[in-house]
Amino acid sequence: MSSKISPSTPASPPKKIRVGVLGATGTVGQRFITLLSEHPWFVIDSLGASERSKGKKYKEAVKWKQTVPLGGLGLGGIGVLDQEKTSSADLHRDDGRAADLIVKGCTPEEFKNCQIVFSGLDAEVAGDIESAFRSANIPLFSNAKNYRRDPHVPLIVPLVNPSHLSIIHQQQRLHSPPLSKGFIVTNANCSTTGYVIPLAALEKAFGPIESVLVTTMQAISGAGYPGVPSLDILGNVVPYIGGEEEKIEWETLKILGGITDSETEVDSDGTPLKAFDMHQGNGKPALRVSASCNRVPVIDGHMECVSLRFHRRPPPSPQHVREALASFTPEIQSLGCPSAPRKAIEVFEEPDRPQPRLDVKGSHNGAGVSVGRVRQCQVLDIKFVVLSDNVSIGAATSSIINAEYAVLKGVVS
Amino acid sequence: MSSKISPSTPASPPKKIRVGVLGATGTVGQRFITLLSEHPWFVIDSLGASERSKGKKYKEAVKWKQTVPLGGLGLGGIGVLDQEKTSSADLHRDDGRAADLIVKGCTPEEFKNCQIVFSGLDAEVAGDIESAFRSANIPLFSNAKNYRRDPHVPLIVPLVNPSHLSIIHQQQRLHSPPLSKGFIVTNANCSTTGYVIPLAALEKAFGPIESVLVTTMQAISGAGYPGVPSLDILGNVVPYIGGEEEKIEWETLKILGGITDSETEVDSDGTPLKAFDMHQGNGKPALRVSASCNRVPVIDGHMECVSLRFHRRPPPSPQHVREALASFTPEIQSLGCPSAPRKAIEVFEEPDRPQPRLDVKGSHNGAGVSVGRVRQCQVLDIKFVVLSDNVSIGAATSSIINAEYAVLKGVVS
Amino acid sequence: MSSKISPSTPASPPKKIRVGVLGATGTVGQRFITLLSEHPWFVIDSLGASERSKGKKYKEAVKWKQTVPLGGLGLGGIGVLDQEKTSSADLHRDDGRAADLIVKGCTPEEFKNCQIVFSGLDAEVAGDIESAFRSANIPLFSNAKNYRRDPHVPLIVPLVNPSHLSIIHQQQRLHSPPLSKGFIVTNANCSTTGYVIPLAALEKAFGPIESVLVTTMQAISGAGYPGVPSLDILGNVVPYIGGEEEKIEWETLKILGGITDSETEVDSDGTPLKAFDMHQGNGKPALRVSASCNRVPVIDGHMECVSLRFHRRPPPSPQHVREALASFTPEIQSLGCPSAPRKAIEVFEEPDRPQPRLDVKGSHNGAGVSVGRVRQCQVLDIKFVVLSDNVSIGAATSSIINAEYAVLKGVVS
Amino acid sequence: MSSKISPSTPASPPKKIRVGVLGATGTVGQRFITLLSEHPWFVIDSLGASERSKGKKYKEAVKWKQTVPLGGLGLGGIGVLDQEKTSSADLHRDDGRAADLIVKGCTPEEFKNCQIVFSGLDAEVAGDIESAFRSANIPLFSNAKNYRRDPHVPLIVPLVNPSHLSIIHQQQRLHSPPLSKGFIVTNANCSTTGYVIPLAALEKAFGPIESVLVTTMQAISGAGYPGVPSLDILGNVVPYIGGEEEKIEWETLKILGGITDSETEVDSDGTPLKAFDMHQGNGKPALRVSASCNRVPVIDGHMECVSLRFHRRPPPSPQHVREALASFTPEIQSLGCPSAPRKAIEVFEEPDRPQPRLDVKGSHNGAGVSVGRVRQCQVLDIKFVVLSDNVSIGAATSSIINAEYAVLKGVVS
Repeated sequence: MSSKISPSTPASPPKKIRVGVLGATGTVGQRFITLLSEHPWFVIDSLGASERSKGKKYKEAVKWKQTVPLGGLGLGGIGVLDQEKTSSADLHRDDGRAADLIVKGCTPEEFKNCQIVFSGLDAEVAGDIESAFRSANIPLFSNAKNYRRDPHVPLIVPLVNPSHLSIIHQQQRLHSPPLSKGFIVTNANCSTTGYVIPLAALEKAFGPIESVLVTTMQAISGAGYPGVPSLDILGNVVPYIGGEEEKIEWETLKILGGITDSETEVDSDGTPLKAFDMHQGNGKPALRVSASCNRVPVIDGHMECVSLRFHRRPPPSPQHVREALASFTPEIQSLGCPSAPRKAIEVFEEPDRPQPRLDVKGSHNGAGVSVGRVRQCQVLDIKFVVLSDNVSIGAATSSIINAEYAVLKGVVS
Repeated sequence: MSSKISPSTPASPPKKIRVGVLGATGTVGQRFITLLSEHPWFVIDSLGASERSKGKKYKEAVKWKQTVPLGGLGLGGIGVLDQEKTSSADLHRDDGRAADLIVKGCTPEEFKNCQIVFSGLDAEVAGDIESAFRSANIPLFSNAKNYRRDPHVPLIVPLVNPSHLSIIHQQQRLHSPPLSKGFIVTNANCSTTGYVIPLAALEKAFGPIESVLVTTMQAISGAGYPGVPSLDILGNVVPYIGGEEEKIEWETLKILGGITDSETEVDSDGTPLKAFDMHQGNGKPALRVSASCNRVPVIDGHMECVSLRFHRRPPPSPQHVREALASFTPEIQSLGCPSAPRKAIEVFEEPDRPQPRLDVKGSHNGAGVSVGRVRQCQVLDIKFVVLSDNVSIGAATSSIINAEYAVLKGVVS
Repeated sequence: MSSKISPSTPASPPKKIRVGVLGATGTVGQRFITLLSEHPWFVIDSLGASERSKGKKYKEAVKWKQTVPLGGLGLGGIGVLDQEKTSSADLHRDDGRAADLIVKGCTPEEFKNCQIVFSGLDAEVAGDIESAFRSANIPLFSNAKNYRRDPHVPLIVPLVNPSHLSIIHQQQRLHSPPLSKGFIVTNANCSTTGYVIPLAALEKAFGPIESVLVTTMQAISGAGYPGVPSLDILGNVVPYIGGEEEKIEWETLKILGGITDSETEVDSDGTPLKAFDMHQGNGKPALRVSASCNRVPVIDGHMECVSLRFHRRPPPSPQHVREALASFTPEIQSLGCPSAPRKAIEVFEEPDRPQPRLDVKGSHNGAGVSVGRVRQCQVLDIKFVVLSDNVSIGAATSSIINAEYAVLKGVVS
Repeated sequence: MSSKISPSTPASPPKKIRVGVLGATGTVGQRFITLLSEHPWFVIDSLGASERSKGKKYKEAVKWKQTVPLGGLGLGGIGVLDQEKTSSADLHRDDGRAADLIVKGCTPEEFKNCQIVFSGLDAEVAGDIESAFRSANIPLFSNAKNYRRDPHVPLIVPLVNPSHLSIIHQQQRLHSPPLSKGFIVTNANCSTTGYVIPLAALEKAFGPIESVLVTTMQAISGAGYPGVPSLDILGNVVPYIGGEEEKIEWETLKILGGITDSETEVDSDGTPLKAFDMHQGNGKPALRVSASCNRVPVIDGHMECVSLRFHRRPPPSPQHVREALASFTPEIQSLGCPSAPRKAIEVFEEPDRPQPRLDVKGSHNGAGVSVGRVRQCQVLDIKFVVLSDNVSIGAATSSIINAEYAVLKGVVS
């Protein structure tokens, strides 16, 4: 892979970086604000929401649904920029609070002070708004699905393929006019994110995976708010989540695939464009993924039962798989991303763990995943369960780590 | 298959048959009583429970947990024999009620009036008690797991393999002294029962299945009472049920296998004994089953996500599979078992059905199963979900239909 | 009370009566259709819903959420009029089914064949539509709240105050032009309905109640569909339901009050108008009601903890209260309304009953209520819990019984 | 009140204090260990449990059910004494971990190194064991109910009546032989604790309360583990908790009452003994309490709907009540108990708050309570809801604050 991103020379710790949040009143937006309020580098400068909220104080516009009270955010941490004091001299003063920020509209003009913008927008509106931010030369890290399939937009699970960030140079160059700073980086669907992390660890240790069957049991928070009506899910299982199985099936290929030279597309000067190989180029055997998605009455935490077959024969033993998972160290850890989990994959030995209610935060505070019940599969090779915190690594946390990685790689200045 | 049971000549409708229930105060026992109170043939004569309950009126011994009030059982139906009037002349008078029966101990002597006994005993005590009833020449239909692996005891899912009842002649002959009437018939574990019904329908239509991956989401009622502590399951998923995966994996083989002549065991007169072929004799390819079992916060109804691969290439299309499932007609229907479901398999077209809360009873009143989301599997051939009522077809209902079948086949006189 | 309704001469069993349902696709509408499909007198002629559904077959317009399958409605019962055969000769043929009826708009013209119309409309639209039906001389029984406070519209809990139906003569006479057949009758809010039934029984036995404190724990189905978001209620209690406490507090007064001559309003000929005395006229001491309403994660069944003080000193003992409740026989029973419960109030002796999951249908099939834990209150006189089926007696069932009563009283011809 | 405890001279911050936990493997024991592992003064020296656990490492004996992993306890905090290094020089070294402590039996000999012992024992065994610890001169703070009614044992809610600790001098003197250090202090039942805190705040501000009606909706964790069977509570409400209403009714009187000279009992030298006045001595009007207790499907957090009547006429307005609650400052705060909440009572203005799932920890981390919906009551004077964290302030947290208070008062040396 030829990448313009240097592999592991971490930049020095950055100064304060002004960030914005789009879709600030929604479920994902609330989560962004909760995390950013404690962040060591990022300082919330601007919050954007719909017309209905524009002009109000954030605390009056939002129906706050986090267990950390809005008024208590950042009290032990770094907090939020005072809106009145954005001169560079004030950048390290954090005596303001998100609760009192005036909500803005979602236009690039209103976010021009921001060096990075995070998007928690709904898919219905994300397409045009995110495109406008990119065109306005603003780096944008999005949790929305709109640009995930775009062949020039990386789809990054930060514990798996942050190096795909290298494609953004092409994304910027192909824009008209070419962009110096603006780009869109997406993170994956929550159910893809959780289970693709152990897959990546296993491919790293044992080579290509040939096929994967995954059955999910997904938490209601994955559907946002108001999301799933209680009459549909209380004491029930719904064996269907619209579009979810397809997302898992193709997102996995893009994330686990590499970046290669395109065979058909060339640049204006005749050099081949970069392209995602969708896990099937380079003589690597194609990966087949089959997903079955279910909604269950759990607040937070997607459980996924995974069975897989390796290309290598004989396949690794369950014990080797456990060891490979437990020792997996993604680049974001070695590089020093502040939101990287202490442990990427926590492996449980107890037969009945992990469980959403007890283990969703694990020893990784929701930024890694938990795996348990690694054992032989009678049909494929190995089976296990993986639990991920869909509102953390499955959403806002991934966007934030992606941005940290971009900062450390010098992609955001 | 050489069977002493004639294939489809139904006997004339029987007179009243006196039945007993062992483990009458437990969850399965309560369900037996609820069903038997409405039964057209069977009349509850005796209820047995532990020493603690013995001698009390049933209504005083039981902590009734059914939604039909104990006092309202059988009001529209057939009811319960008056304990004082068991002469044959009184057999059709049903002016007594289970609620007022005096609970007996679980000894054959106390059940000698019963022509059939149903067992809802816990596995801890079922072994010796059930054996004693058989030795006392009492036909016994058990929901307990103790004798399921016994090579001379049939393991019957009534919509699948009631013809396995033929092995009981061998079971009686091998007893010392040989038995004229007593035997043990078991039904399968609730999670096996549900998913093996569509498997049987598909093998009937399309020939042998090569491999099956099943991921279950099982209701709490499957664990009995008190069963699962609420702190373990409220808003949670537990990815483990002790022994359940193993049960599914081997029970499937015994149920879907045929009965053949044993290759190694012979009778005293040198004729080969009958043996279960565990789905791998007769040149039929061995079936591989891989199960992952989860407990979810649902009251009644086991959901199972099934992926399977047929031996036949090319495999049938999803539409052919749907049609084969919808048209499956098990022998218990054609024979006229009164508790057989109107429809063995209800096939849903809606993308988000079946669901436990809405569909557990389906149009089959819990005696059949519901299948939905039949579609192609990217890894094996076909995938779908199946929902079964674990406290009906997954437990007492199966025992009762097995007994009905035995009556119609003349095995119980 | 001077009433034009004769107190207890039941009419002979009526012929088939053609009825319509407004708001047919909503939660209450679905419940109306489920109940009416089994009704011995009423035959569904017309279903009305919003523009979005108009012109579609009902089964295609509705997202059916009842546990009885739409296709199975009325199979054991009476069913639905064939739309093509509405001549009187065909009135008793019921070979049609609600599932296949073409949904109409909610205009009186489209319901002119109906002798009675039931309204399950949302409050947002019920006001104008219901008024138009009345003006078109169609008797309308509404579950909506819009006209409950109207001084000329009776607010009837059928087990309590059906005699308030007498006010409709005044309602018709005050309409311009006076109406011969059209009127509006409302039933009460679900949480009021449940607890006011034992209050009525106790006032009948022991005279006026002085004060009542009621704390509710209400099921999610009370909020309709989509209703309560699952993120708000799973594993949670919400100590607030907008407007609910006020409804309980004033509806109780209207329902338990009598009808007297107005002191201020007179007819055109100088005779005093009838008026509800709001439980404070006639020298009867005013009743004070204090309600605290909570939403809990229960599907069906409102539980209410009630403490009350009688006017009479000394107050009755808990045992006298139990007896008065158990023997309460409302007029709808003696009159022979077909949907009246076999038992109006089921009194439990077990200390931990009733419970929504086990007892919501009780021995009254949801048309009565269940009371338990009758005991002394250290602050007022007596306390108990009452459980009512909010989707049955708390909603559609009440409207239907009210209509049955009106038919038997000759108010609907 | 004549007390030997000086009212507010806080002692200097203590050195490390070695503590033990009885019933360490149970639900309350686990909570004690979680809290003590982060405690600034207390260092876990010994853990005691039943014979079954004795001799095992704690992590092997316990079925850990806390969301903080056992292995991660105290990592940011103070931790646990190394069992091998208990010389005073080592007292501040905390390189051991509770997980690896060897579980002891519950005998005083095995806890002789402990300066304070906390009891999370079940009531079945707590009586004899706790008495033995007291006789062995060990200060014991118990969460069990056994000694709560003892007239010489204080029943202390730390935010309400820590001054009742003064009775322990009498408790020690009446022991034979008199004790120099040993005593038993109990804390209240979880449902009493939560609602008595706002009652105390209101009595402090507005004088005696005359009557209180409280309806509880209690979390399942209040019943311990395995506790409530899931079949009993999933999607259900159980309107009964054995003995709970009686506990609330009398515990409230003991807690809110003062300590006076006994009218009938005298010491050996003729001086009157101290006695709890049960909220009815001193000319103060007797308080009447009526409780209705319900179990709801909530993990943590008891919600209680409270209506009350003051002695004072006219009663305070809702706004005055809100202010009095919000400004309530208990002695444990002014004295500097490290586990005292930052805010004793958090008052919510939002109409639908507090809610267990969002607010159980509040801004007080479970050591205070949250009150909402303060409004007029139509029957008594004022009504509101109060939410308390039953596993924190309702259990182990109270015992720990009581011990902190005792240390600061010099009662424990």
